[in-house]
Amino acid sequence: MTTAPVCVLGLGLIGGSVLRAAVRAGRTAWGYNRSADAIAGAADAGYDTGTDLTAALTRAAESGALIVIAVPMPAVDSILDAIAEHAPTNPITDVVSVKVEVGDAVARHGLTARYVGGHPMAGTNRSGWSAADPDLFRDAVWVVTVDDGADPDVWREVAALALDCGSVVVPTVGDEHDRAVARISHLPHLLAEALASVGAVSPLAMGLAAGSFRDGTRVASSSPELVRAMCEGNADALTDALDDALALLTRAREELVTERSTKTLVTAGHAARTRYEQHERFDIIDVEPGEPGWLEKLRAAGRLGGVVRQIRSASPG
Amino acid sequence: MTTAPVCVLGLGLIGGSVLRAAVRAGRTAWGYNRSADAIAGAADAGYDTGTDLTAALTRAAESGALIVIAVPMPAVDSILDAIAEHAPTNPITDVVSVKVEVGDAVARHGLTARYVGGHPMAGTNRSGWSAADPDLFRDAVWVVTVDDGADPDVWREVAALALDCGSVVVPTVGDEHDRAVARISHLPHLLAEALASVGAVSPLAMGLAAGSFRDGTRVASSSPELVRAMCEGNADALTDALDDALALLTRAREELVTERSTKTLVTAGHAARTRYEQHERFDIIDVEPGEPGWLEKLRAAGRLGGVVRQIRSASPG
Repeated sequence: MTTAPVCVLGLGLIGGSVLRAAVRAGRTAWGYNRSADAIAGAADAGYDTGTDLTAALTRAAESGALIVIAVPMPAVDSILDAIAEHAPTNPITDVVSVKVEVGDAVARHGLTARYVGGHPMAGTNRSGWSAADPDLFRDAVWVVTVDDGADPDVWREVAALALDCGSVVVPTVGDEHDRAVARISHLPHLLAEALASVGAVSPLAMGLAAGSFRDGTRVASSSPELVRAMCEGNADALTDALDDALALLTRAREELVTERSTKTLVTAGHAARTRYEQHERFDIIDVEPGEPGWLEKLRAAGRLGGVVRQIRSASPG
Repeated sequence: MTTAPVCVLGLGLIGGSVLRAAVRAGRTAWGYNRSADAIAGAADAGYDTGTDLTAALTRAAESGALIVIAVPMPAVDSILDAIAEHAPTNPITDVVSVKVEVGDAVARHGLTARYVGGHPMAGTNRSGWSAADPDLFRDAVWVVTVDDGADPDVWREVAALALDCGSVVVPTVGDEHDRAVARISHLPHLLAEALASVGAVSPLAMGLAAGSFRDGTRVASSSPELVRAMCEGNADALTDALDDALALLTRAREELVTERSTKTLVTAGHAARTRYEQHERFDIIDVEPGEPGWLEKLRAAGRLGGVVRQIRSASPG
């Protein structure tokens, strides 16, 4: 539905994968990265990349490109400074793992009217351009925010990019997103870090470790800087999730000591994992961005497990 | 080095896999299971299985078979009753996930002199004979205990079975085993149960869950009964491990709230996961079971990451 060009700012694992996927989908796309070393080989491989942020944004302003902010949270503000200066009317999205903090930063820069947040729920333990993969987002979920005031045309642009990358779109309000990912993405990282610390204490323990430890600590091999940026950018929601986990584990500890039982935790955990395995998405097919109540309808459907798999052409006018 | 027959008591995932692997290795092997329904198809597939425990043990007594206890911890006592009655002089091992509690039960039955504990560090989320797989133990670690008083000939028999099943042998004292597996096997299960409970709270959260949640909760899909039997049989060591995890997570919570930082936990967890990834085994080649100090030598080597990959023939007499 759209052939808008795409300007990707930040070419690590996620941004690099967006650039590659967009190019493969037939989009005109270019990318900026602060460090030339980090994207060594990108230009030789035919990707339009560089280290001149102003040039990338000037080109975006001239062509009406969708700007994709793909830097870690701590670098978002300086990127927004540049966007506000060089491409203040372009449609903007991001692929950062938290949405409220990015949305607040966008608002501080006066760019809210042209911004719709995004978050592809995909990744690997590797990082950087060299790990970028145009298939990273295939069959993944890509959150596209439906906060009050979202522009339906920008929303279409952002959703179309997610679909072009092979994902399905989950429409979600930013703060609901942040609370959900605290539980299913950020808390798993903290638990993995704790498990690694408690388990890798001796050659004997490491030698006996098998599947449960390997899988339970897998994400602890991710870059500490990226894990910290992700978790610390969502500190309030993550604190709530961590408190829930601490409460469950503290109760389990009491039951283990007083009754030599793990029944409560194990029963609840197995039931929860079963719910997760049985969770099914449904397709959202009856909501047209821009129609009356579209944001509320998309929010309600997203809460219930709905996903958008196609976008109709933008309405004329 | 041995062609001793093998009598497997309990034909769930682990016991069934031992029976299949032993048969494939050329051993004469038979199995007992309390429930006939649970081993439907085993006899038709050519496996020598039945529901008559006395018959299985009488045959073991007549042939000098190595008896493998492969029932969950709560059923170990009644199995030992039958062994003490029908095959009190046979070599005995087990594949239960804790060693101190099994060793204590063996001692109560007066069977310690012919017992050497075992624990193959392998499994899947599935359970029962239908999930049994002769390749389950290939390239896995199989703990064989080196507690005081262990009989070198029984030790050889047990280690030989582990090697025949495709594993490498880690020699370990029972209580050191239990403390290690509390950290790398039982704690991972409790954390997975807690993560599943905290994460699978809404269709939105379940719909956004990706790799970190999927891997972090994988073992929560295991049978709750088996997880409980495993964890509750190692309650003291598991309490210590859980306390360590709670301490780390509580400190992380404080740092997150007061400094909006996760630096301490993430830095330590990443370093621990890196240690685990870099852990290397070495081969124990210079210890002969039965020689002076053999138990101490094997213990020391096991603590440092040593594994046994071959067993020489039993010394004459």
